[in-house]
Amino acid sequence: MTEAVAAWGATAPDAALAPMPIERRELRADDVAIHILYCGVCHSDLHTARNDWGRTRYPVVPGHEIVGRVNAIGSAVDGFAIGDAVAVGCLVDACLECPNCAEHQEQYCPGSVGTYNGRDRHDGSQTQGGYSKRVIVRDKFVLRVPDALDLSRAAPLLCAGITTWSPLRHWGVGPGKRVAVAGLGGLGHMGVKFAAALGAEVTMITTSPSKADDARSLGASHVLIATDKEAMKAATGRFDFILDTIPVAHEYQNYLRLLKASGHLVIVGAVDQMPGFHSGLLLGGRKSVAGSAIGGIKETQEMLDFCAEHGILPETETIAMADVNTAYERMEKSDVKYRFVIDMATL
Amino acid sequence: MTEAVAAWGATAPDAALAPMPIERRELRADDVAIHILYCGVCHSDLHTARNDWGRTRYPVVPGHEIVGRVNAIGSAVDGFAIGDAVAVGCLVDACLECPNCAEHQEQYCPGSVGTYNGRDRHDGSQTQGGYSKRVIVRDKFVLRVPDALDLSRAAPLLCAGITTWSPLRHWGVGPGKRVAVAGLGGLGHMGVKFAAALGAEVTMITTSPSKADDARSLGASHVLIATDKEAMKAATGRFDFILDTIPVAHEYQNYLRLLKASGHLVIVGAVDQMPGFHSGLLLGGRKSVAGSAIGGIKETQEMLDFCAEHGILPETETIAMADVNTAYERMEKSDVKYRFVIDMATL
Repeated sequence: MTEAVAAWGATAPDAALAPMPIERRELRADDVAIHILYCGVCHSDLHTARNDWGRTRYPVVPGHEIVGRVNAIGSAVDGFAIGDAVAVGCLVDACLECPNCAEHQEQYCPGSVGTYNGRDRHDGSQTQGGYSKRVIVRDKFVLRVPDALDLSRAAPLLCAGITTWSPLRHWGVGPGKRVAVAGLGGLGHMGVKFAAALGAEVTMITTSPSKADDARSLGASHVLIATDKEAMKAATGRFDFILDTIPVAHEYQNYLRLLKASGHLVIVGAVDQMPGFHSGLLLGGRKSVAGSAIGGIKETQEMLDFCAEHGILPETETIAMADVNTAYERMEKSDVKYRFVIDMATL
Repeated sequence: MTEAVAAWGATAPDAALAPMPIERRELRADDVAIHILYCGVCHSDLHTARNDWGRTRYPVVPGHEIVGRVNAIGSAVDGFAIGDAVAVGCLVDACLECPNCAEHQEQYCPGSVGTYNGRDRHDGSQTQGGYSKRVIVRDKFVLRVPDALDLSRAAPLLCAGITTWSPLRHWGVGPGKRVAVAGLGGLGHMGVKFAAALGAEVTMITTSPSKADDARSLGASHVLIATDKEAMKAATGRFDFILDTIPVAHEYQNYLRLLKASGHLVIVGAVDQMPGFHSGLLLGGRKSVAGSAIGGIKETQEMLDFCAEHGILPETETIAMADVNTAYERMEKSDVKYRFVIDMATL
């Protein structure tokens, strides 16, 4: 028997988010039911609510940075108990059989299911996200939140966190590496925190000189102003790795010049048509431009554990559910340091 | 005292190559003098002779696929003896102190010196290439040609060979990997030979169905016709690695779709403005587009030794020095299987 659950969602691209009760499925044997305490507000939520990517099916309840407590488990679940602090990110299912799943990269599984606006693998019903009181998720896609993490601030780790953590780990960022993080928003601020905690020397690249102090307080040793031509020229060949969190397409050539030989520029922000550049920027130093999307479940758990061990949490501004439309407006003006988190007690 | 040496070179972008005696320097303590037996004809020779890249200083003697025998050594040279079969590729000097040199990637040293159209690090004189009877090169940039290699065919290994070998090795191509080589020319045919010899499953991607048999005889297990939309679609997500030897800029999106998650497309052919593409092609599978230029001295020697061990040689057409202008014309029509080699006895 399905259960009616309070939620907020969108019914059309131009509709404000509004209360919209949804049905959650009956528990399957491997399901975990989660009472949601907090949900982060990601740019993807906004893009989906407004159908910016042309793939939204309405009505849709956004939210894929979910933190809460287990309040029921299916008959075959043995890894979770009622009351456990848990989290759910951008994925709620995958085939777990393909080569990508075998390598713990479920996000690249062709059968992966998004936390919202996805299709359930069993009954084809539409998945609905975390702007709600309760969510039911297959156990293998539920993360444990270590005790040391403040539940009220942890939610953005589930998307902004893993999106920056995964490439930093995959490309071996650590001591002795010079890393630049381009763009200081929800993703960028986590990129700086993680790269610094991993032992790299971190430079924030931003077009806003006003962000320099913030960048330093987050862990950046240096700040490079992207519009300062002389400073950019002086940084030629400086970085092993550039984490590009800029949310829109931009010219890549000036950033490629900042890489050392064998360096990588990894795009995690812009899902967009990239302008071209001269291949000599790649050939003249065996450089690469890559992309990376969120991360797998195993590495998401590793990230949460790392955060607990190193005292890392996102910088958040807690809002009430009813403030979400205002929050969207502020996000569009980059007026957030650095992630809104909805307190679900207000729903 | 310098020495006059017979050579062929160009005096202007629109001038045919013609006899042009040059001066070779007096031996320095660490120099090796080489009597040139064979010199391969690379597309870069043609681009430089015609100033296609806008960087040519005339007069210029092309040629950076040089095979010959030592006929004199400087006072401090102890690794070579007169009569040794040796080779010189695209580099004749580098600083040997920078981080790139320390990692045996002298080709990315900011102070590296090209075999022709470069500037000598000591006296600033212009370097002149292998379309000549003799060349004098710093010992650390002289390769040994193993006895097992046919000197008359080995020359193209020094550029076409190392340009394809280096990325295949760097990105770990070997057993269990599915590799595609795009473009079947001087570079592509070596890419197929090397990838197959390294144990990978090799697919040739070409727009010319007529090249299918050749590709198979070179070692490709499969041939994919790039203009066959259905075949390209069926190959979605198939390859771990694509070696892109296509000599001109082209659309990359159709090739990126052929990569598995975490796959790499590496450009070694086109030094050109690349058209843009959608970043989702990278993010949706942690894929990368990279470039690679020739290779370092150490890995060039490793490649020559590997070729000797595995009986690998380029497919060549031997020509006389006087035929070089005709050879350039034929190269422009891709009318060569797969590399011209000048027999320097004809100079």
